[in-house]
Amino acid sequence: LQDARNRLAACRPTAVNLQWALDRVVGAAEELRGRASISVIHQAIWEEARGIHEQDRAICRAIGVAGAELLDEGSAVLTHCNAGALATSEHGTALGVIYSAVASGKRIHVFVDETRPLLQGARLSAWELSRSGVPVTLICDSMAAQVMRERRVQAVIVGADRIAANGDTANKIGTYSVACLARMHAIPFYVAAPSSTFDLTLSDGDQIPIETRDAREISEGFGRRTAPDGISIYNPAFDVTPAELISALITEFGVIRPVNTHTIREMVALK
Amino acid sequence: LQDARNRLAACRPTAVNLQWALDRVVGAAEELRGRASISVIHQAIWEEARGIHEQDRAICRAIGVAGAELLDEGSAVLTHCNAGALATSEHGTALGVIYSAVASGKRIHVFVDETRPLLQGARLSAWELSRSGVPVTLICDSMAAQVMRERRVQAVIVGADRIAANGDTANKIGTYSVACLARMHAIPFYVAAPSSTFDLTLSDGDQIPIETRDAREISEGFGRRTAPDGISIYNPAFDVTPAELISALITEFGVIRPVNTHTIREMVALK
Repeated sequence: LQDARNRLAACRPTAVNLQWALDRVVGAAEELRGRASISVIHQAIWEEARGIHEQDRAICRAIGVAGAELLDEGSAVLTHCNAGALATSEHGTALGVIYSAVASGKRIHVFVDETRPLLQGARLSAWELSRSGVPVTLICDSMAAQVMRERRVQAVIVGADRIAANGDTANKIGTYSVACLARMHAIPFYVAAPSSTFDLTLSDGDQIPIETRDAREISEGFGRRTAPDGISIYNPAFDVTPAELISALITEFGVIRPVNTHTIREMVALK
Repeated sequence: LQDARNRLAACRPTAVNLQWALDRVVGAAEELRGRASISVIHQAIWEEARGIHEQDRAICRAIGVAGAELLDEGSAVLTHCNAGALATSEHGTALGVIYSAVASGKRIHVFVDETRPLLQGARLSAWELSRSGVPVTLICDSMAAQVMRERRVQAVIVGADRIAANGDTANKIGTYSVACLARMHAIPFYVAAPSSTFDLTLSDGDQIPIETRDAREISEGFGRRTAPDGISIYNPAFDVTPAELISALITEFGVIRPVNTHTIREMVALK
């Protein structure tokens, strides 16, 4: 079980709530070590996992309710990567906020960054949003600035892989770019994430490990070679957005604003 | 000839020096209208075109010499799209500055944005730079901010499709994004372009027509469908970077800094 835990944990070094969920599952088994049969332990693991899933569904619903009021009727929102039903439980975190706003009767248009190199925006977010009847416009990552300049979006909302104690947030590569652009255009930039994404052992985002991935995701990501041989390729899979660029954090406990060590510790104390 | 001219001009509405070159070629023919045989006119067109090519080679060399001193020994430069030998005459404009700096003995490392949707950075700039022995690191467009944050680049240099009288510059989509990010990170942002790229009939960049292109460049750009059906796709091929984000313009007449209507008119007066 520890081998399986380590293997799963190593495949996503940046995200922290995978570790959190693995610790919970392994913990459920550890508690029964030497006191129960394999089949009873197996059942406990299964129940813990189901419990995490049910809890995450409720958390995502609460994030959606907390964030929905930040989105105005008739507005357009930009999102990056996928923080929806395909990445979390039930309706997601960032996309959950959008789904909740829509469910409350607001008309919301979503601009989706395609999110190179793996195109989670084009392949996942655009798909699940349009399947839910939310109007979607897909753009390349490099077009977000232009869309902001044309005043086509009124807010940005993204998920998170790990949030340090001061609010610095690791998320899919390109998120930091969007946060910079939102600041340049005076557009609010929101991060929606469950409290399990907070890593209060890290004082700031500089300590978050950033996974770099295979160069071929960039040079031949679509089954066709699109870059010459013999060059260097840099492929960080995540980046860190400093807290000062984040207008608010949206959690299952409500909206944290402004974003800093003090307000985050207050939220945790409430927990 | 007019039909051919109009057809060629219509295929690139944003770029202005295509119009300029077409006007020169058609002008050479017009001058001989009714006064010379078809074969003489054909020869005049050919000579005018060769003349433009030779002149453009000299202009690109002059741009390179003017800009090379802006790049520091041992520094790294970010570029977007292709403004090199494959897009202009001889060694290019933005890449020409890099080639000239390298020829003068400086070691320069180049970070190249892949430049979605058509990947001119990955397919053209990375190829020609590495073929010329310049060390290249390819990144996705969404990684430029992270590369700047890590202090891996000390300058940005790009080409231009059209420059208004006040210095607002239309260039490949994503250029404006890079200019915003350079400003956020206090990195100089340079535009290298021949004087034929200036359109002094336009007081500012709002008047530059922006070509939007086929949605399939984004949804199936690599020969494989990467976005769901039934969504909207926005595909502007260019954007406009306001003059206040441009540290300097590099032309065949030298470096224009600061960038404004006055300094640009002064350069034109010298011409």
